[in-house]
Amino acid sequence: MYIDEPLKKYLDEAASGAPTPGGGSVAALAGALGAALTSMVCNFTVGKKKYKDVEAEVAKILSEAEELRAKLLELMVEDTRVYGKVSEAYSMPNNSPEEKEARSEAIQKALKVAMKAPLEAALCCHRILKLNEPLVEKGNKNLISDVGVAILLAESAMRSAILNVEINLSYIKDENLRHETRGKLSPMLSEAVQLREKIYQAVNEAIGAELK
Amino acid sequence: MYIDEPLKKYLDEAASGAPTPGGGSVAALAGALGAALTSMVCNFTVGKKKYKDVEAEVAKILSEAEELRAKLLELMVEDTRVYGKVSEAYSMPNNSPEEKEARSEAIQKALKVAMKAPLEAALCCHRILKLNEPLVEKGNKNLISDVGVAILLAESAMRSAILNVEINLSYIKDENLRHETRGKLSPMLSEAVQLREKIYQAVNEAIGAELK
Repeated sequence: MYIDEPLKKYLDEAASGAPTPGGGSVAALAGALGAALTSMVCNFTVGKKKYKDVEAEVAKILSEAEELRAKLLELMVEDTRVYGKVSEAYSMPNNSPEEKEARSEAIQKALKVAMKAPLEAALCCHRILKLNEPLVEKGNKNLISDVGVAILLAESAMRSAILNVEINLSYIKDENLRHETRGKLSPMLSEAVQLREKIYQAVNEAIGAELK
Repeated sequence: MYIDEPLKKYLDEAASGAPTPGGGSVAALAGALGAALTSMVCNFTVGKKKYKDVEAEVAKILSEAEELRAKLLELMVEDTRVYGKVSEAYSMPNNSPEEKEARSEAIQKALKVAMKAPLEAALCCHRILKLNEPLVEKGNKNLISDVGVAILLAESAMRSAILNVEINLSYIKDENLRHETRGKLSPMLSEAVQLREKIYQAVNEAIGAELK
């Protein structure tokens, strides 16, 4: 689903009055675009004489970027599937006390599953940011603006995924899970903000950008 | 090209060792994703009884978001076409003084054309941010996180497009054009940063997000 269909169709469906794909799925795709550009930078570095000294390191980065891209495309689809499960739970019968309880339990269960997709996407985007840090120095210099685009998209995709985690948490009653999830994401988000600043500045300096 | 092909194929080509699609094209696509989510929020608002009072205004926003999405998808393709023209100019013969001059002129001409695609994309992304400002209050409340994702992607896509303008400017010798282009983008970028902050905070407050 989606990945083998025309690009325009995905965008048409995202724009439409149908609930999926929504922001969670789109965030994962934006992260995958950041991963793709990370790979592009690596592909223009590995195998070039000028960058022989860093070849092994950059080949490793390429391999992880490719894994992250595949994972984020999976999550782009997964996000729409789990959203469907939440909707199903909400449409359960809601009349007798037993029905109300069964429905509420099903909703909570579905929300906990649904939250995992954007949570996983946020982790992947954080990794993409980390992968780009050495590329500023070691990647092919001609592609420095692509490093910039990769980290800008990865950071906004990470924040977007976190917004989708938060919207799920706002309906989840399990306080421990809320606390644990935010505790996991909080230091990652801080690190991502710092990495994005550092890399973005280095890229702007490298290209002599006046607008930043 | 691209828009009617499988989504995965576009990402594979972006990730590959081929020069196009690169960061400029990907930035335009990220902007189109922001536009798509803007339309989604509008599509869940227009025609709903609860939002009857704002229907006309939101329908107008929808119409502009759809135009911007189409334009950004065009620019996603256009960016790869104009990049090809720059490459062609660089590969012109470069031996005699006449050849050197003709090549240099052709490069400058191609760069000026190439710069227009990311410049246009940046303007579109700025518009997407502006369209989302009233949606925080007037859009369907259930889609508030989608407003958040839309503006996060639009802002990072705008910055990404500007990076691609800057990389072109760094090779362009026409000082007036450099000055004029930066003069046009600079106030827009400042406004975009402010809008992004304002809307992002409002979205986080609305969903009771603790991570931001």
